[in-house]
Amino acid sequence: MAKEAQFSGVIAPVLTPFDEDGDPDADRFTEHARWLMAEGCTALAPFGTTSEANSLGIEERLELLEELVDEGVDAAKLMPGTGTCSIADTVVLTEHAVELGCGGVLMLPPFYYKGPSEEGLYRFFAEVIERVGDERLKVYLYHIPPVAQVGFSLPLIGRLLKEYPDTVAGLKDSSGDWSNTAAILAEYPQLEVFPGSEIFLLDGLKHGAKGCISATCNVSANAIRKVYDSWQAPDAQRLQDGITALRKAIQAYPMIPALKAVIAHYREDPGWAVVRPPFVPLPEAETQKAVRTLADAHGFTLDFAKAA
Amino acid sequence: MAKEAQFSGVIAPVLTPFDEDGDPDADRFTEHARWLMAEGCTALAPFGTTSEANSLGIEERLELLEELVDEGVDAAKLMPGTGTCSIADTVVLTEHAVELGCGGVLMLPPFYYKGPSEEGLYRFFAEVIERVGDERLKVYLYHIPPVAQVGFSLPLIGRLLKEYPDTVAGLKDSSGDWSNTAAILAEYPQLEVFPGSEIFLLDGLKHGAKGCISATCNVSANAIRKVYDSWQAPDAQRLQDGITALRKAIQAYPMIPALKAVIAHYREDPGWAVVRPPFVPLPEAETQKAVRTLADAHGFTLDFAKAA
Repeated sequence: MAKEAQFSGVIAPVLTPFDEDGDPDADRFTEHARWLMAEGCTALAPFGTTSEANSLGIEERLELLEELVDEGVDAAKLMPGTGTCSIADTVVLTEHAVELGCGGVLMLPPFYYKGPSEEGLYRFFAEVIERVGDERLKVYLYHIPPVAQVGFSLPLIGRLLKEYPDTVAGLKDSSGDWSNTAAILAEYPQLEVFPGSEIFLLDGLKHGAKGCISATCNVSANAIRKVYDSWQAPDAQRLQDGITALRKAIQAYPMIPALKAVIAHYREDPGWAVVRPPFVPLPEAETQKAVRTLADAHGFTLDFAKAA
Repeated sequence: MAKEAQFSGVIAPVLTPFDEDGDPDADRFTEHARWLMAEGCTALAPFGTTSEANSLGIEERLELLEELVDEGVDAAKLMPGTGTCSIADTVVLTEHAVELGCGGVLMLPPFYYKGPSEEGLYRFFAEVIERVGDERLKVYLYHIPPVAQVGFSLPLIGRLLKEYPDTVAGLKDSSGDWSNTAAILAEYPQLEVFPGSEIFLLDGLKHGAKGCISATCNVSANAIRKVYDSWQAPDAQRLQDGITALRKAIQAYPMIPALKAVIAHYREDPGWAVVRPPFVPLPEAETQKAVRTLADAHGFTLDFAKAA
């Protein structure tokens, strides 16, 4: 495609730390965001599934995003999640992100009512886009059927692209199904497509994907970035095999509690391990096992000296 | 049980009408609520699944509830839905309902993340109850696994009841599985249990249920009330058979669009048929067919002369 991609590379759905009262911890949050950029992330997607975004209140999300931008994180490199079950709240979050100058927004479909029609989903997104009514808006469709249950069919993507070609900019595919990602890449080359796991990074890049947006970028952006930077180099497959193995080792644990527990360990900050219900923290024994396994089998460690 | 039930009888999850801009229509909403009480509802559960509550924004829900109370609907007879995916928003909605004097709240479990642990769900509700921290709070657990996917196991109910016996007051069972309702009734007789469909009303009452909270109470409260009032009378089964047949005829259509379309027809107010995406309105031909079938086979009609 002639036009330059709005987003590309290695994008982390930023974890959301909580304080001892269970409220979002803006200081730990912005510190983590800065560290992620220093670690090699090219952009950030706060308020994704990994961010426990759906365990946050609307007000909490508005405040945390403002905090990020106020603290100097480049808004153009932010793709906050703004999709909720309701057009009303989705518009509130999306307008706010656009006003702050965010480069794009990652939008879940409405996920409460199951089995919605393609027409109904189309109308949902059309109404959100029309209500926001801002040409700066760039929407990235968030396809994650294993969690949301509701997803984006190829015809739905096509309809939205046809009606809003300057607004619908991309898609994150967290289906875990490479054949679906490949079909979207083949059918809609104008879309900026991001697999939801680095396992598909090299294959994705070879087929036109722009990078990946992956939970584990919260702890391994550095290694993932190496694959992104040298995907056409001779040792690309070897590097990919390394990040695939690491990802599989991490996802053997409950993903969100495990990521937070590992960061808490290396930061020597137990507060980092706090998750919001319905999640529960990784038990201490599991944390020790995870840290040991990742270090022994994958040479994994985290270095927070780089943090601002 | 010695203590008097907080809620009992025929409870409608009040439909939410929208205006021509797609915003909630407070006038039609309060008019419908008053009509439902005149039709025989004993209480109202605004912001249920049938109310398209999850398609409403947090602010919209706060405003609509205030409108109902301001317009004279007895708050003690209101059991608004306040459960969302986040503790934060659930607390906002629940505190507001308690402050307005609502007799109880109907609380969905957090439904985004799938397969949460019992411990995680317990902590969610415990934290909501502790944060609200108001002895006036009466929580009705909302079990609707076909839609929310996440539900309440018997042990989870037991744990919540044990820890918060004065707060956890009841449960709506929309599993559609009578054996589940029967098991809850047998295990926790202190709970006010409401099947989510009038199909189970007579069986429920015989086993200790307090009534039903059902979508179709929006159009057939009158007939359902007759079963409730005379469930020990000789013709109770005949009356139950009538409301069962009517319910089955209605649920042959997409429930929410069909209920709104039928009301729009009898009110001669096409605006009533508006639904929010991801729902789509019932097509005109389907509406005509539904109205005809319900009238011919079930003598169904709606009389809005009683409306205030």
